[in-house]
Amino acid sequence: MSQPALPLPTLPAFAAAVTERTRTLQTRLCVGLDPRADAYRDTAHLRLHTLDVLEATAPFAACVKPQLAFFEALGLPGFALLEEVCALARTLGLPIILDGKRGDIGSTAEAYARAWLGGPHAGDALTVNPFLGFATLTPFVEAARANDGGIFVLVKTSNPDQNDVQGSGISERVAVEVARLNAEEEGEAGTYASVGAVVGATHPRDLATFRALMPRALLLLPGLGAQGAAAADLAPAFHAGGTGALASASRGVQYAAGSGAAGLDVAASAAAARRFRDELNGVLEL
Amino acid sequence: MSQPALPLPTLPAFAAAVTERTRTLQTRLCVGLDPRADAYRDTAHLRLHTLDVLEATAPFAACVKPQLAFFEALGLPGFALLEEVCALARTLGLPIILDGKRGDIGSTAEAYARAWLGGPHAGDALTVNPFLGFATLTPFVEAARANDGGIFVLVKTSNPDQNDVQGSGISERVAVEVARLNAEEEGEAGTYASVGAVVGATHPRDLATFRALMPRALLLLPGLGAQGAAAADLAPAFHAGGTGALASASRGVQYAAGSGAAGLDVAASAAAARRFRDELNGVLEL
Repeated sequence: MSQPALPLPTLPAFAAAVTERTRTLQTRLCVGLDPRADAYRDTAHLRLHTLDVLEATAPFAACVKPQLAFFEALGLPGFALLEEVCALARTLGLPIILDGKRGDIGSTAEAYARAWLGGPHAGDALTVNPFLGFATLTPFVEAARANDGGIFVLVKTSNPDQNDVQGSGISERVAVEVARLNAEEEGEAGTYASVGAVVGATHPRDLATFRALMPRALLLLPGLGAQGAAAADLAPAFHAGGTGALASASRGVQYAAGSGAAGLDVAASAAAARRFRDELNGVLEL
Repeated sequence: MSQPALPLPTLPAFAAAVTERTRTLQTRLCVGLDPRADAYRDTAHLRLHTLDVLEATAPFAACVKPQLAFFEALGLPGFALLEEVCALARTLGLPIILDGKRGDIGSTAEAYARAWLGGPHAGDALTVNPFLGFATLTPFVEAARANDGGIFVLVKTSNPDQNDVQGSGISERVAVEVARLNAEEEGEAGTYASVGAVVGATHPRDLATFRALMPRALLLLPGLGAQGAAAADLAPAFHAGGTGALASASRGVQYAAGSGAAGLDVAASAAAARRFRDELNGVLEL
């Protein structure tokens, strides 16, 4: 890398902020925002509902995860809305995970990291795809450390066909690399480092393995609700006291009352977020 | 997928357009646009130079490849510039490959495909990351077919550390899947189908293997110039007559005269594109 080595943080702000919010509000829920154009009359309608859902579910959320694909699909108004979503999340005190699954080499990875971990739309953390190789994670890790942010590296995604490429021990090798990166950072026992991992909530039997392989990683567990994962299966992803993991629900919150116009019920979204929060707490020893 | 099956094109417009342009202008060069903020005084300067480079190099290019990361790094003005770049490329008759390396599951992949293969910033083709599994390619393939476009699936990227994840036969498995998808499409012998593949120009010894594994795929070969690949090594990626592959150069064209302000020389960019074109033609039996 062309930049000088940066001092490593002793307690990354993103991981600390999420963990603090988890302890204070007693929630391990990550609210995913996937604003689907076909559920709305127009972009103005989509904008209002998405911001309303964010505000109504914030009291039950440890963090928020806007899915970049749905904002990109709207063109320029989508990127403007993403800035509004991030601004509102900051006002609400919610750490922001941008779900972009970016990955590229060298200076291109640096540009992505600048865009999403330090730029005008920046979140606090970004999901990162490791397909191009472990050295390609470096610009993202450095940007996360420099900005007190975080990244979540895809380790084992929630879909059934992940095995095509992630099987044969690839997920485990990525997990070992995540742990290696986190071991570079100082920090007291029980604190989390900059590099988190995405492990599908749909793989409950693997959660204990990945938890053990990556002791200082926050685990992001997508697939709660619409993708079929149940809160009861997720306990092995957490450390004692219920820290170290975030279970993510998107459709099951934003469109809790169903798909189409009938599903646009902000009160139902808030109730769903509260229910997911309570279900998660119910299966943990707190 | 939720949409009904689409009729398969007999000759996808993107692959046909690139091949036609290759035959007419006798060029196999893909000009990459990587507008780096740190090379310019401000965004207005970046915008003018990027559009100038596109116009000056178009006569020597089979297609253009804007790298989305550099546009994203500029925030909203970057996306507005991307629209201008695409509009200018269309005026110049240049097929557009958007290099975004997107990849996600289900309806999220559909949203990315909508964004970049049919939406307001749409190009003619998009690079796609297969890490999440082969079924996750389907929404991109369907969007490419529906829009007479194309995709380029990452098979073996140009960087040395690609082997961390793409080794152990993964690249070959992805290549077999690309060929399987293309076999679904009708087409005469010697025509190319919707699903191309990215194979680093830096792996000359593998090019014949991947060419044989994916007979109907356009191969996109990044790494010419700045990344160290030489035109002389690329012949095995092409079919007789010099079709079937596109060699991509980015920094070596846009910043042909060097990095920093001294490298902003549009005439040098045009000369570099002409030289890459001629070097490629010189190693092929045409």
